[in-house]
Amino acid sequence: MQGPLRHVKPPWAPSSLTYFPGRPSVRRVWGVSPSASERKKVLILGVGWGGFRLARDLDKRQFDVSVVSPRNHFLFTPLLPSTTVGTLEFRCVQEPVRTIRGVHYHQAQATAIDVHHRQVHCLDVYRHYGSGKLVFQLPYDHLVIAVGTKSSTFGVPGLQSREEQFSPTGTSKDNVFFLKQLEHARSIRHRIIECFERASSPFVTEAERTRLLTFVVVGGGPTSIEFTSELCDFIRHDVSQWYSDLKHSQKIIVIEAGKHLLGNFDSSLSDYVETTLAKRQVTLLTNQVVKEVKDVSVVLDDGTEIPFGVCVWSTGNGALEFVKNLPLPLSQDHRIKVDETLQVLNHPHVYAIGDCAVNEDKPLAMLAQVANQQGGHLASCLNRDEALAFQYKFMGAMASLGTFNAVVDLNGPKFKGIVAFLTWRSAYWTMMVSVVNKILIPMFWFKSFFFGRDTSKF
Amino acid sequence: MQGPLRHVKPPWAPSSLTYFPGRPSVRRVWGVSPSASERKKVLILGVGWGGFRLARDLDKRQFDVSVVSPRNHFLFTPLLPSTTVGTLEFRCVQEPVRTIRGVHYHQAQATAIDVHHRQVHCLDVYRHYGSGKLVFQLPYDHLVIAVGTKSSTFGVPGLQSREEQFSPTGTSKDNVFFLKQLEHARSIRHRIIECFERASSPFVTEAERTRLLTFVVVGGGPTSIEFTSELCDFIRHDVSQWYSDLKHSQKIIVIEAGKHLLGNFDSSLSDYVETTLAKRQVTLLTNQVVKEVKDVSVVLDDGTEIPFGVCVWSTGNGALEFVKNLPLPLSQDHRIKVDETLQVLNHPHVYAIGDCAVNEDKPLAMLAQVANQQGGHLASCLNRDEALAFQYKFMGAMASLGTFNAVVDLNGPKFKGIVAFLTWRSAYWTMMVSVVNKILIPMFWFKSFFFGRDTSKF
Repeated sequence: MQGPLRHVKPPWAPSSLTYFPGRPSVRRVWGVSPSASERKKVLILGVGWGGFRLARDLDKRQFDVSVVSPRNHFLFTPLLPSTTVGTLEFRCVQEPVRTIRGVHYHQAQATAIDVHHRQVHCLDVYRHYGSGKLVFQLPYDHLVIAVGTKSSTFGVPGLQSREEQFSPTGTSKDNVFFLKQLEHARSIRHRIIECFERASSPFVTEAERTRLLTFVVVGGGPTSIEFTSELCDFIRHDVSQWYSDLKHSQKIIVIEAGKHLLGNFDSSLSDYVETTLAKRQVTLLTNQVVKEVKDVSVVLDDGTEIPFGVCVWSTGNGALEFVKNLPLPLSQDHRIKVDETLQVLNHPHVYAIGDCAVNEDKPLAMLAQVANQQGGHLASCLNRDEALAFQYKFMGAMASLGTFNAVVDLNGPKFKGIVAFLTWRSAYWTMMVSVVNKILIPMFWFKSFFFGRDTSKF
Repeated sequence: MQGPLRHVKPPWAPSSLTYFPGRPSVRRVWGVSPSASERKKVLILGVGWGGFRLARDLDKRQFDVSVVSPRNHFLFTPLLPSTTVGTLEFRCVQEPVRTIRGVHYHQAQATAIDVHHRQVHCLDVYRHYGSGKLVFQLPYDHLVIAVGTKSSTFGVPGLQSREEQFSPTGTSKDNVFFLKQLEHARSIRHRIIECFERASSPFVTEAERTRLLTFVVVGGGPTSIEFTSELCDFIRHDVSQWYSDLKHSQKIIVIEAGKHLLGNFDSSLSDYVETTLAKRQVTLLTNQVVKEVKDVSVVLDDGTEIPFGVCVWSTGNGALEFVKNLPLPLSQDHRIKVDETLQVLNHPHVYAIGDCAVNEDKPLAMLAQVANQQGGHLASCLNRDEALAFQYKFMGAMASLGTFNAVVDLNGPKFKGIVAFLTWRSAYWTMMVSVVNKILIPMFWFKSFFFGRDTSKF
């Protein structure tokens, strides 16, 4: 078993297929899927809101559906901030891809698209013993690109994205975190508890204790606000109980480049959010830009340096390298240009949905509901073999402010406080995919409310 | 914040105290606990079965209790194997140390004991920014050593323990796992899913697929048997559903040096276990010793080489380096010699309980129930200021064989099958410390039984 593995040509590989040379450190295999059949092959890249919905809704009797994604689960992103402090547990906000029946799943990263030969080059996520990573190609009749985006750092010095290489924090630093994947949420949770454990030692200096308990949140969008609110809840209900000496020592600072938090919401709601957070002793620094990220501090445009224990960076989305290098028409911000039927311009049989796609005549925000509706629309078009224009239906914008508080903007009616909170919880509860998560999530809400959040780190 | 931190002498540090120089890369602080008071100081090292019970039962009005442990939670070890495949979730088999009211907890590692000055030298588990790790001393009036043991490798070439340095697998290899801590269980769970994901690729060779799906368990004690049974359940109920092509490809091999599995149990029960596992296609290699552990295979004494995807190593316990270096009387196998009152021989005010202690006149097995009873006994003796002989009461031995099957040996009556299974579950359910875990655990049992186990990896 110690030598390099054999390079096999599988028995079902037609000899006419091209042999893909791959990179030097990489295993080479013949490029064809063993699931080849009479049904048309639909290949979906990504299992976010768009890809997962599409894979689920496609008619498997008509189509031979394959999914490629380095992540083997769909993540219910709106509930991700709740997992950073243990209000919800990680596993109840995701669904394994394999729970979709009749789909071939490949845990791999798409590296390039060969539009001419209608195939996608993929790279296995695992390094194989005695050989490199596996490279293989998957053929398609219809290709759907739903790979999403990565967190953007806007080129701030000192901070690089490591999202494409799977770092536990998502960034190049171990105390600065993106909040886009479950591994980021888990790292944040561990780090928050670590900071309280360290700060509780009677042997650290006051300056160090102050630094450890300073939580900096960069960005003023819904993810930042929800994380900040969850952190406030955690400190108010749990830290006060288990680290009682520290309950008034922490400092939460939200830094936003724009004039207001939740810039996309109605101004009455964003005012409400700002007042609510200010009441909870959160420092709001609006109209402030982070100029540099150092090892344990951020530097603002005006030169102020803020030392921190934890920094959560959630400022927006940028294109993946994979998308930037595609031989497809791209917009200026590197999104794939599609027409109103979601087909990539001038590329029949290639579609793009979600954050990585844009119809420049009718540009839409990068939202879960857009991707989800596009996935559903494309599935129904493919199932019925017709090309209809996609119509986006705005379902409202929501942000939780922790226990018993939220803001909801339903494109007309606006709520805040407990009514909004109940709307938020019931809306997301309804949208959960599996029965088991529909049971688990209220159970964890109940548990956190009555018994508090767990503070173990392992 | 970038320079080294100041070396502070805290205001409450009496000037007469010695100044501990520490190692060169290490911060120096004054050695005293800020919680100093008129109450006698009890210092407990470790939060396993013995230390946690003692910390909980001690009368906090009489004693100023401090706990030192690198792990900030107590682990309910008998349920640990259930978490390796997701029958139970990690957080429901542990209790944070801080849930014990009125105890000072230090997340640190004890490095040495100064019996003469009645203080313990500790090393912080975290590396501080701009300086090294914090070294500090904690004084005591009564010291209780309850640090337990580490997994033993019996010096097998190719395998070293990394338990004292917190490796995620516990060993020097990333596909060979101990099963003693939550991080080991989590690594095993990730690795098992990784093996199935990799093996499900149509592009791996048959030899590689066979290797990936070979699970080797070294050791025939209760932990090994319970892990093996959980793995069988996982394959039968979950793999068959989500990786249906692979359901008959896996191979589970248990290697035991002795003549029988569960050597300490009554022979009728160990026969039953062997028959049950054999029926589930588990290969039992008894009377076999592992001679060497290679990167992806184990070599047996007779030269047979078995390639594996996952190897779980659970062969017994060995002494920690900390214990080996103590200036206290040690037995030949490096356990601390105590008298019948659990006091260390010739060392008044120093006690040792659990796996790291031995009364050579009446040696006891390294069992959770021994440590737990010793913790309770010592607490009641200290509370009442008397020294009574410890009497061990054997409560029975149990091992689960997965859903609806177990063996129970109650020192007289013996059960197997569903009666034993119900005894096993209700016994452990009764022993759970917190209300929330008493609710969560049956809920997860119910969930795994009706909805299966989750196969996501993140």
